[in-house]
Amino acid sequence: MSENKKIEIMQSVYDKNDEVASKINLSLTKKGIYAINVMGSPGAGKTSTLIQIIKRLDGITPYVIEGDIESDFDTKTLLSMGVKTIQINTGGACHLDSPLIGKAVDDLNIEKGILFIENIGNLVCPAEFKIGEHAKMLISTVTEGSDKPYKYPLAFEKADIIILNKCDLLPYVDFDEDFFIDGVRALNKTAPVIKVSCKTGEGFDEVMLWIKEKAKA
Amino acid sequence: MSENKKIEIMQSVYDKNDEVASKINLSLTKKGIYAINVMGSPGAGKTSTLIQIIKRLDGITPYVIEGDIESDFDTKTLLSMGVKTIQINTGGACHLDSPLIGKAVDDLNIEKGILFIENIGNLVCPAEFKIGEHAKMLISTVTEGSDKPYKYPLAFEKADIIILNKCDLLPYVDFDEDFFIDGVRALNKTAPVIKVSCKTGEGFDEVMLWIKEKAKA
Repeated sequence: MSENKKIEIMQSVYDKNDEVASKINLSLTKKGIYAINVMGSPGAGKTSTLIQIIKRLDGITPYVIEGDIESDFDTKTLLSMGVKTIQINTGGACHLDSPLIGKAVDDLNIEKGILFIENIGNLVCPAEFKIGEHAKMLISTVTEGSDKPYKYPLAFEKADIIILNKCDLLPYVDFDEDFFIDGVRALNKTAPVIKVSCKTGEGFDEVMLWIKEKAKA
Repeated sequence: MSENKKIEIMQSVYDKNDEVASKINLSLTKKGIYAINVMGSPGAGKTSTLIQIIKRLDGITPYVIEGDIESDFDTKTLLSMGVKTIQINTGGACHLDSPLIGKAVDDLNIEKGILFIENIGNLVCPAEFKIGEHAKMLISTVTEGSDKPYKYPLAFEKADIIILNKCDLLPYVDFDEDFFIDGVRALNKTAPVIKVSCKTGEGFDEVMLWIKEKAKA
């Protein structure tokens, strides 16, 4: 397969994806739904972050589309909290795309509120695909190390908000906060970087201010 | 693009990749090189694990092919230790493939020893692509959580050795070791699971026994 054909096929994949994503975004906006694409490495605490946020929504209705390669642990946890959640298992695919989300949105039958779309645990590919979201939330952790913006730039560049999780472990790890922030700011001048701990709840008041302002909720 | 065409293209990508991987593997074997494909999430400690191993090689020559989306921090660290290292930047691609490795092996000009190929930080795609390796080493961490084998099964299924890193943080995280091991064993009956800490050096004597036995070095 020649290089030209590869590029042509990838361009076609992106174009088709973005076209569907725009339709989903328009349809959600009309329904009064603000959609957040939640991205991060495996084990960054994406579901734990959602749980902390959902607990603080004060009457705003949350919906979750839960993306995983396999398994449905997180969906079960969210359903047990009474959150309307739908599972997508990609069966190997390393990111969610907009046709998958389009189908899930139809199945969820959502009304006014906030839709959280938890992407596959992967710091690379999810940032390449629009899925109808209004904002991208990137969750990074102090245990992953402070060099992540330099090594995985696209996710940090595209993020509208960056959550730095597991800050309760700061005393036990070598995390250079200045180096991390410098790396983020070289890629992204505006996204707030909020230090949190899903274990203690620290930092989530600030996260909620951002979400409620953005969602006008 | 129809589903059939997508499958056809992916099959062609895998076939071509595996053909090149077999040639690389044969060529390395003839040279007395044992090659280890090092996989794990972003920030799992792949380079830190290599540093701990390389310090204990007792006269065996290490070579490293360092895969990153962007940046060359780890290559600089390894070069400063006197390790013959070559950088591959994929510029966005989420895994290494065998044509990339074939070129790097030629450029490295290696002789008898052990070749470590540090893959892109991603628990999904790297496990799908053979790159000429003799063994796959998977690095997981206690900070990522004990559900990783259930959520990212292919990497655990394909691994020949599983390193469980950051065990110095066990007192501060909720990590269910039995649940983790049960998940691993449902996918993989034989790979040793070795608890280590790159911070303290704990566990690396056992890792070295495995490497030296496998590499007959």
